[in-house]
Amino acid sequence: MTMKPYEHPPALYPYEEWNLSEDAYEDEHNQRSESVFALGNGYIGMRGNFEEGYHGTLGTSVAGNYLNGFHDWEPVRYPEGAYGYPDRNYAMLNVADARIIELDIAGQTFHLGHGTIHRYRRWLDMQGGMLHREVDWESPAGHRVRLRIRRMVPLRHKHLAVIDYEVTALNFGGALTLRSGIDGEIVKTAGGADPRLGSGSGEPSLLPEDAGFTPQTGTLWLKQRTRRTGFALLTAARHELRASSGQPAGWERNGQRLTASFSVMLEQGETAALTKYIAYHTSQDEAEESLPSRSSAVLEQAACSGFARLAAEQRVYLDLFWGRADVEIFGDPALQQGLRFNAFQLLQSTGKDGRTNIAAKGLTGEGYEGHYFWDTEMYMLPFFIYNKPEIARALLEFRYVTLGKARERAAVMSQQGALYPWRTIGGEENSAYFPAGTAQAHINADIAYALKQYVQATGDTGFLAAKGAEVLFETTRFWADLGYYNPARGGAFCIDAVTGPDEYTAIVNNNAYTNLMVQNQLYYAVETAELLQQEYPGDYERLQREIALGAEEISAWREAAERMYIPFDEKLGIYAQDDTFLSKKKWDFAGTPADKYPLLLHYHPLVIYRHQVLKQADLVMALFLLGEQFSIEDKKRNYAYYEPLTTHDSSLSPCIHSIVSAEIGDLRGAYAYFGHTVRMDLDDINRNAKDGLHMAAMAGSWMSIVNGFAGMRQSGGKLRFAPALPEEWAGYRFKVTFRGRLLEVEINRSSAVYTLLEGEELELHHRDRLLRLELAEPVTVAQP
Amino acid sequence: MTMKPYEHPPALYPYEEWNLSEDAYEDEHNQRSESVFALGNGYIGMRGNFEEGYHGTLGTSVAGNYLNGFHDWEPVRYPEGAYGYPDRNYAMLNVADARIIELDIAGQTFHLGHGTIHRYRRWLDMQGGMLHREVDWESPAGHRVRLRIRRMVPLRHKHLAVIDYEVTALNFGGALTLRSGIDGEIVKTAGGADPRLGSGSGEPSLLPEDAGFTPQTGTLWLKQRTRRTGFALLTAARHELRASSGQPAGWERNGQRLTASFSVMLEQGETAALTKYIAYHTSQDEAEESLPSRSSAVLEQAACSGFARLAAEQRVYLDLFWGRADVEIFGDPALQQGLRFNAFQLLQSTGKDGRTNIAAKGLTGEGYEGHYFWDTEMYMLPFFIYNKPEIARALLEFRYVTLGKARERAAVMSQQGALYPWRTIGGEENSAYFPAGTAQAHINADIAYALKQYVQATGDTGFLAAKGAEVLFETTRFWADLGYYNPARGGAFCIDAVTGPDEYTAIVNNNAYTNLMVQNQLYYAVETAELLQQEYPGDYERLQREIALGAEEISAWREAAERMYIPFDEKLGIYAQDDTFLSKKKWDFAGTPADKYPLLLHYHPLVIYRHQVLKQADLVMALFLLGEQFSIEDKKRNYAYYEPLTTHDSSLSPCIHSIVSAEIGDLRGAYAYFGHTVRMDLDDINRNAKDGLHMAAMAGSWMSIVNGFAGMRQSGGKLRFAPALPEEWAGYRFKVTFRGRLLEVEINRSSAVYTLLEGEELELHHRDRLLRLELAEPVTVAQP
Repeated sequence: MTMKPYEHPPALYPYEEWNLSEDAYEDEHNQRSESVFALGNGYIGMRGNFEEGYHGTLGTSVAGNYLNGFHDWEPVRYPEGAYGYPDRNYAMLNVADARIIELDIAGQTFHLGHGTIHRYRRWLDMQGGMLHREVDWESPAGHRVRLRIRRMVPLRHKHLAVIDYEVTALNFGGALTLRSGIDGEIVKTAGGADPRLGSGSGEPSLLPEDAGFTPQTGTLWLKQRTRRTGFALLTAARHELRASSGQPAGWERNGQRLTASFSVMLEQGETAALTKYIAYHTSQDEAEESLPSRSSAVLEQAACSGFARLAAEQRVYLDLFWGRADVEIFGDPALQQGLRFNAFQLLQSTGKDGRTNIAAKGLTGEGYEGHYFWDTEMYMLPFFIYNKPEIARALLEFRYVTLGKARERAAVMSQQGALYPWRTIGGEENSAYFPAGTAQAHINADIAYALKQYVQATGDTGFLAAKGAEVLFETTRFWADLGYYNPARGGAFCIDAVTGPDEYTAIVNNNAYTNLMVQNQLYYAVETAELLQQEYPGDYERLQREIALGAEEISAWREAAERMYIPFDEKLGIYAQDDTFLSKKKWDFAGTPADKYPLLLHYHPLVIYRHQVLKQADLVMALFLLGEQFSIEDKKRNYAYYEPLTTHDSSLSPCIHSIVSAEIGDLRGAYAYFGHTVRMDLDDINRNAKDGLHMAAMAGSWMSIVNGFAGMRQSGGKLRFAPALPEEWAGYRFKVTFRGRLLEVEINRSSAVYTLLEGEELELHHRDRLLRLELAEPVTVAQP
Repeated sequence: MTMKPYEHPPALYPYEEWNLSEDAYEDEHNQRSESVFALGNGYIGMRGNFEEGYHGTLGTSVAGNYLNGFHDWEPVRYPEGAYGYPDRNYAMLNVADARIIELDIAGQTFHLGHGTIHRYRRWLDMQGGMLHREVDWESPAGHRVRLRIRRMVPLRHKHLAVIDYEVTALNFGGALTLRSGIDGEIVKTAGGADPRLGSGSGEPSLLPEDAGFTPQTGTLWLKQRTRRTGFALLTAARHELRASSGQPAGWERNGQRLTASFSVMLEQGETAALTKYIAYHTSQDEAEESLPSRSSAVLEQAACSGFARLAAEQRVYLDLFWGRADVEIFGDPALQQGLRFNAFQLLQSTGKDGRTNIAAKGLTGEGYEGHYFWDTEMYMLPFFIYNKPEIARALLEFRYVTLGKARERAAVMSQQGALYPWRTIGGEENSAYFPAGTAQAHINADIAYALKQYVQATGDTGFLAAKGAEVLFETTRFWADLGYYNPARGGAFCIDAVTGPDEYTAIVNNNAYTNLMVQNQLYYAVETAELLQQEYPGDYERLQREIALGAEEISAWREAAERMYIPFDEKLGIYAQDDTFLSKKKWDFAGTPADKYPLLLHYHPLVIYRHQVLKQADLVMALFLLGEQFSIEDKKRNYAYYEPLTTHDSSLSPCIHSIVSAEIGDLRGAYAYFGHTVRMDLDDINRNAKDGLHMAAMAGSWMSIVNGFAGMRQSGGKLRFAPALPEEWAGYRFKVTFRGRLLEVEINRSSAVYTLLEGEELELHHRDRLLRLELAEPVTVAQP
């Protein structure tokens, strides 16, 4: 299935370099817009729901407020279970909705399906990190107001969100009421038949505990508890009314719905404003008894700062972020917008505390139930390694923190060492379909690969010694125990009954991707053991003591790596995806109508499994990740075989094909695949942006530029570039953070320009040419 | 895992040739006894619960009343679903319990945990087809009675069950009350973690509709309805009181519990009796409005007959049955009892109406939810083919009746033709774990094999032409479409992504059993097409018209058969279970403690899948079924490889190993495997007889004698025997029905004696020697 050449589809949102905006509101696109206008700070995530609520068709809105990693579980009931199946389903909770602000004028309540909208504009400002809305509304009774609503989830304040709600009386003077609420009665959406969504139970997520209103500070608060994990959640909203004539008008509680009312008298032309400071605190993070004081302190501090100062802080934070992470494309505002949107959403979605991570849909929706996958290590991590390495470290730390649970899982699977879960929130395996879940043991090797990449790009061997090595050794142990020297393969080291990245093939022997990645991991484990012995003997001794690491074991790893079986088909001259892949029937693409994609929604797994057909890059991914092991001719031959068999029914796939296409000189192909990745959600290519954004694809679009078009690779502690420029662009520019340096790379029609913006001198390769960069001295290389 | 030599374990029930009995009642064995004392007539099944109910520990009793094929469904919710998964779980219902009879004497209610039991005996009489109980009970107040309770589910009366309840006052004269009930409030047992049990929902199975009591006939009746299928069920119980002084004392209704009371005055030494005629009728079988009249008629006729005449009829029916089906073993009453028990339970469990079949647990319990599996064709059918061919035909007719649903299933699986469900009640696929469910497409070939065997043993080509051929052709079509000529296998016809009989390996390419059986089916389909063209041209034309059967298609089948790929390992000189089986690690049997069996309850499927380990006979089964295709040396070599790898964690396995062991001359092995099959439930070897009896293993024990020790095979329309006699026995004798003849075979120390008891002269082979039998003229051949 060769990707069609990319052309921009009709724009769903205008192409703007730093904004995402809409000038009209339509019910039918509401749920998608809720996702793309989502705000977050890596802990709190808020979908783009309106303050006044949704008044459109039932089932076309999800009022979503999420706290990264804040979860509960339900028992899993299998129609036909088996030993070792996870018996709990952990899911990120949709928490109390504190965004609610309703406006009443003379008995008429503002919403977009009511009265007359004279003007409407909503926009996400990615430089300011703020969601704006301006509405000019006339009530059925003829009262006309201008609303200016700004919303922010400050990136520097983990527990805080803020809404500033301004209302101006345009054609009248008189009374109005602002009702600000917290709605704690949240029922999880049922997933239906699509396995990519979660499985909702229909029961309210949270049980009520207590609620109140503190008049001194105008603060509503609601305390709730999760059903099974027993976590307490305190949601609080402090109000600040700015009006020449206005006052609190009491509060009320209706079940778990709290409302504080404010009465305002406006002259014609006058403006009143309500600022709402929202704080979420849970006992998952801190002692339950301290939640009230922690919450008050956050709200107090925020109110002291005020909205304007918080907005300024946010801008500063983002200036710094964009200063390092921005990727510019000259000559295509649509792609430019896509890249920025992706980077912005990645930043908004990532946990930074070492205990939380990046869910498949970030904090933008409930698809995949807030679970963390290999997506983090293989897709999102490179973006952070090369832009915000401290976040990359925190993400890797998550694996260290959950190592105990990975050890337990390995034991359940009758294996030594540790096996990381295919999908998880708190470290437990959460996959209910093991052939495309637990069988994807490659996640162990993916984590090892990411660790290696992080350490090589940052030089942070201290982290490796203190934490990473234990993860590395325990997962290596798993492989050493799982694999075996197979007489039927001439005594080569084989790994049976696993599933590779491609989920359209399951439970196979010797998945080439897995075996290659495991080989890489085994060597890296040996190297790391040597490094520790030499440079961190204390840590080495600790591991000898605590996990019984021994010299014999380490040399067994080396031997397994050396004798690793890599399936190769001599006749075709390509690597076999696994032992039997190449002997299967090829999928009948010609006979498959377009509406039968994604195949997983239209064909039984067995039908898919018995064909040569890929959901996503598998061996092709290894061609990229372990590129040094393959010649360009190898890459071309293998890519030529697998590319036509790949459906890209996984959103994780096109970016990898884009990178490898670029490397083998197929710039048109690379451009097409890139186009299908970079604006996946803004163009709603998969028609499911409504369930949340595709974080891995977003990160993949960064890789498509940096690793793809610019050909960046790390090798022997040095960066190497092999830049190419798609003919559609005038040029592109990005920066990478590498071993304490900040490097800018600009590619234009005639040349590649490398500039060291921070840090000590740096050597890098432009193709085979070694460049030596000094601070602030651009080096220009002519481009072919 | 070589089977240990068989020795009788301590007897749970005394060894008696025609009875199964117990002389004491113990709570702890109650649930098992409920299964083994079950009665049935192929439609109604009643577990061996006491009339007075169970008063022991909660959860150690299942009051089971079943109607073959009477089912409802519940929606299936998958934690992670996919296209084509069955969305309904069909299950046989536990219906209203009409066996209830309680006895009150001076305010004391009889049950076995109360007062003093002076004598207790319960026995199942397999010649009379009756369950007896005699109890001498003294109430706490000192009233002593003798109870004689007989229960019968008449084999000749589909809708009828009868209880005769006699009470004799031993040491007093006075009043007593008999309370006879129907309890319609049945909640399905929850299955827990064991996947072999069903998944109970906890909701009552049946909704109440109406109830009443007809004083003229003393008849209680209860009308209920299934929740989702909407079937009506009418349960009725007519009473006949025989007492010198006694009378009905009214009835009452409490929800779905109905009770009719009878007051009796007894002199000391006097006996009163209550006969209870029970009828079940459902709208699944007949028009709802006719249920009351049908029920009344059945009860009227039964009451006219009276208990004694019904008992006599039952005896006649069974005399005829045993006259054809009895297998005698000289010198081992335990095995003798086991074989008779098995034959008796098979007879009791089998549907005979062409619309119902034999559930995995018969009508004795709720394990596997009353589903029909390949067990019928591969295990139970031979027993009926050679003993009651009209039942065999009815069982095959079930597949014809459900062909439409098999066509639908094939379409869901993107295949032409028909694919029969792995587990079903009404024809729908009911397996919720496809790797060991829908993937076991071999059921198609199993059905074809069974059909061929039936037609060859009976000569019933009329059935083949009228019904069987359509099943055969449509399932053959499935294979022709599923398989393909694989360039990677030299253009051989390959079948990918199926699971063979062995469920410890799943979703493999070229399972040898499957490919061999499909090859056999393809040839048989071609033969059948030729037969129809020549002998049933009308049927052939009908099929040309109705299913577009064509000459090209038929020759394509022949070609596929000729070019079928059968995986063979040249180095080992054995057939490979599948393309990758032989390259996997062997299971560490030495390191697996006894309490880790069955493996499926202690190891994750992936752990099992990645080893050479079998749950049950796979290739070994083909060695038996398609024995002509293999030399004895082949069989020895293959058996020697697979036997040590087989756990027999499936109860379907030992009998097949017994047969093949016998054939290759390992009589000790054959005897050991036979011993573990024949008394599987009477000795409760798998410790789950409480959930229902192992029908396939029961039928397998018959095969172990007839096909195993006596070496019976069908070949070229003739029977062939190669008898052997285990040294533990003095001899054995059985009869087979074959092409209208009744043949008796007796093997003793010195000879084999063949006697034609019915029908025209018969040629058969004793090993390679051709014998010609005339009616009633035994032919004796000296045995080595």
